Amino acid sequence: MNAHSGPSAATTVLVCVTCKSEAGLMGPGLFDALSERLAAEPDVALKAVECLSVCKRPCTIALAAPGKWTYVIADLTSDSHLEDIVLGARRYAVSPDGVVPWRERPLCFRKGVVSRIPPLASAELRPINKD
Amino acid sequence: MNAHSGPSAATTVLVCVTCKSEAGLMGPGLFDALSERLAAEPDVALKAVECLSVCKRPCTIALAAPGKWTYVIADLTSDSHLEDIVLGARRYAVSPDGVVPWRERPLCFRKGVVSRIPPLASAELRPINKD
Repeated sequence: MNAHSGPSAATTVLVCVTCKSEAGLMGPGLFDALSERLAAEPDVALKAVECLSVCKRPCTIALAAPGKWTYVIADLTSDSHLEDIVLGARRYAVSPDGVVPWRERPLCFRKGVVSRIPPLASAELRPINKD
Repeated sequence: MNAHSGPSAATTVLVCVTCKSEAGLMGPGLFDALSERLAAEPDVALKAVECLSVCKRPCTIALAAPGKWTYVIADLTSDSHLEDIVLGARRYAVSPDGVVPWRERPLCFRKGVVSRIPPLASAELRPINKD
């Protein structure tokens, strides 16, 4: 299991590698598939995490970047959502604050959102659309 | 609605002020109650956020600090959980990495955890207990 992360990568896809179903571990498979698929994406780094605490909805990932909102997204599988995860990560990477317009998010990102966290420095009342 | 945040505050409690039930908005009430309750806590800042995207489990808060894991916690009310939130924030503040030992977490923090996100710089495989 090898993570790639260019030093200039602005966006990090965090993959929970302890996510599992009754059939066994799912997270490592998603991590490996994304590792291969994201190798050609210079702006997106991939990192493994031991438990994002969303254990009932495997697999879970998070999208994060300095100064942007962090999004936690669940119910993802490498069989069904690989291309959508790559697409969603690209759109997150080019967004100024991490808040990708709703209609531009892959369906699995809309349905799977678990939580979002603002960047610490900007966590204040501001007129952001509730999405 | 006034947030207080000392410049040296290491820990931030982010309160979703758009959290609501069928009876109306709940987040602003929790924010105001915490604002009063945390005024004497120099190490804990309080900030309001417009939607943490955990809309089905009001109220939701997050605990964050530079270099620590961020925890998102839901199902909190100012009537029932004010002291526990303060206690949990204190224990988070003194923890080295934000991962408060399970037995030291208030019950509502154990039950209400929605997700946790590692600090970006340290989001790598490491032998952390799954909690």
